[in-house]
Amino acid sequence: MTDPNNNAIAADVLERIIADPFAQHLGIEVVEISLGRAVIRMKVQPWMANAMGTPHGGAIFALADSALAFASNSYGSKAVALDVNITYCRPAPIGSTVTATAEQANLTRRTGLYLISVTSEDGKLIASARGTVFRTESTVR
Amino acid sequence: MTDPNNNAIAADVLERIIADPFAQHLGIEVVEISLGRAVIRMKVQPWMANAMGTPHGGAIFALADSALAFASNSYGSKAVALDVNITYCRPAPIGSTVTATAEQANLTRRTGLYLISVTSEDGKLIASARGTVFRTESTVR
Amino acid sequence: MTDPNNNAIAADVLERIIADPFAQHLGIEVVEISLGRAVIRMKVQPWMANAMGTPHGGAIFALADSALAFASNSYGSKAVALDVNITYCRPAPIGSTVTATAEQANLTRRTGLYLISVTSEDGKLIASARGTVFRTESTVR
Amino acid sequence: MTDPNNNAIAADVLERIIADPFAQHLGIEVVEISLGRAVIRMKVQPWMANAMGTPHGGAIFALADSALAFASNSYGSKAVALDVNITYCRPAPIGSTVTATAEQANLTRRTGLYLISVTSEDGKLIASARGTVFRTESTVR
Repeated sequence: MTDPNNNAIAADVLERIIADPFAQHLGIEVVEISLGRAVIRMKVQPWMANAMGTPHGGAIFALADSALAFASNSYGSKAVALDVNITYCRPAPIGSTVTATAEQANLTRRTGLYLISVTSEDGKLIASARGTVFRTESTVR
Repeated sequence: MTDPNNNAIAADVLERIIADPFAQHLGIEVVEISLGRAVIRMKVQPWMANAMGTPHGGAIFALADSALAFASNSYGSKAVALDVNITYCRPAPIGSTVTATAEQANLTRRTGLYLISVTSEDGKLIASARGTVFRTESTVR
Repeated sequence: MTDPNNNAIAADVLERIIADPFAQHLGIEVVEISLGRAVIRMKVQPWMANAMGTPHGGAIFALADSALAFASNSYGSKAVALDVNITYCRPAPIGSTVTATAEQANLTRRTGLYLISVTSEDGKLIASARGTVFRTESTVR
Repeated sequence: MTDPNNNAIAADVLERIIADPFAQHLGIEVVEISLGRAVIRMKVQPWMANAMGTPHGGAIFALADSALAFASNSYGSKAVALDVNITYCRPAPIGSTVTATAEQANLTRRTGLYLISVTSEDGKLIASARGTVFRTESTVR
């Protein structure tokens, strides 16, 4: 954080962002968070399956949505999701680890747009998502 | 099922649909399932919160997505979600129960469209969603 | 406007909303506009077809998006679309008239949510859409 | 087209894809089409404006949707859009040329997923879209 031009986020902001009970419940781990970007991963547990024995769309979405939350709150001002859409491409194996990457595509004073991809261990696309957030005037927490 | 005109779904189909580990993990309860329609509910537990202390978007989505799965699989042929989008309107209180209703808006041989709303105990709109499913040729499970 | 409880919108606001060059170019006609709601229609011209000889998705979307614009700007404060999603159900015949209805599902100080349906002359669902708008502080025009 | 490993599409397929009346009406020009990818552009005409004097969301969407159609039909089997969502980032100037790029992100036997971006002359993001198509068994036209 000595270089003001890097993408590092303030330590206290990072601490508050990742204090996310549902993300922790799902075993989501942070791989990397920087300004406007987050890479996180989750092991798909057997209890995250749907009736077909594949990962529940809600579990995969929760990972994508967490990546969106982590990336969009990285600036320290509270951002809340307005719209999120997801397209499911293929199921990941139960027991495998999936990775979500959220990248900022646009930022205005009041809104932010993030492109999110969820990939399997072998790099295949599990799901593609996009989220728009509303940036409030309050700080994170 | 003695009345061919009613919306009742076969008992064995219903049994398979609701045998959904993630939905059960989240404590999702079925209020009503009929052909092309599902009403389900979930108590928002403290561990379903995000870093802001409101329900995690992923938890609300998981409820909406489960309603979509239950409604779209009610015919007994396996339907998998292709695209789901959600708009968040307001947070529900932690500890309260939210209800998701999925209603079929269109059905073709290969696809189905469902409108989903998530409402609070006092009937306010928490989130509005829409999902498109691909109907496979295999039966549920 | 003598009854403050009705849904009538101010005449000058209405005039500005419908002065929409692209909507006029497409021959879009207003059936009804009230606060937070718009019903409009368009005859699908042969030049609105795609390479398959059915109405171009962009033409159907333009009708849905116009309904969103008319409904969301009815309050007199400028609203701009942030996110719009559409699901196509079936093609309308070329030469037929399609109708779009936008209904407000939620309104906050800064955002509005609208559910939109596009129907054929015989009442079948052509497309289902949803749009989120950002409400600016400036007035329409 | 002498190299079977390149991304070139058959001449007759290309000819049918671009014979799109609405795209032609809007003055859409093909910059590049290859298998699963299309880059097209459109000059935003004054008659494509909305009531606010900025490009109508329907005109920008029509460009994005045309890129989706061109990219997804490049294989020669007819693909129809199921779901398309768009996020608007900033208005392009009236009179300027906007470019849409559709890139295939996933392809299955029955569906295809395309990420689409619309950019301004100076490379800024005007809109970000994503579309899912259903691939029919018939050939284009």
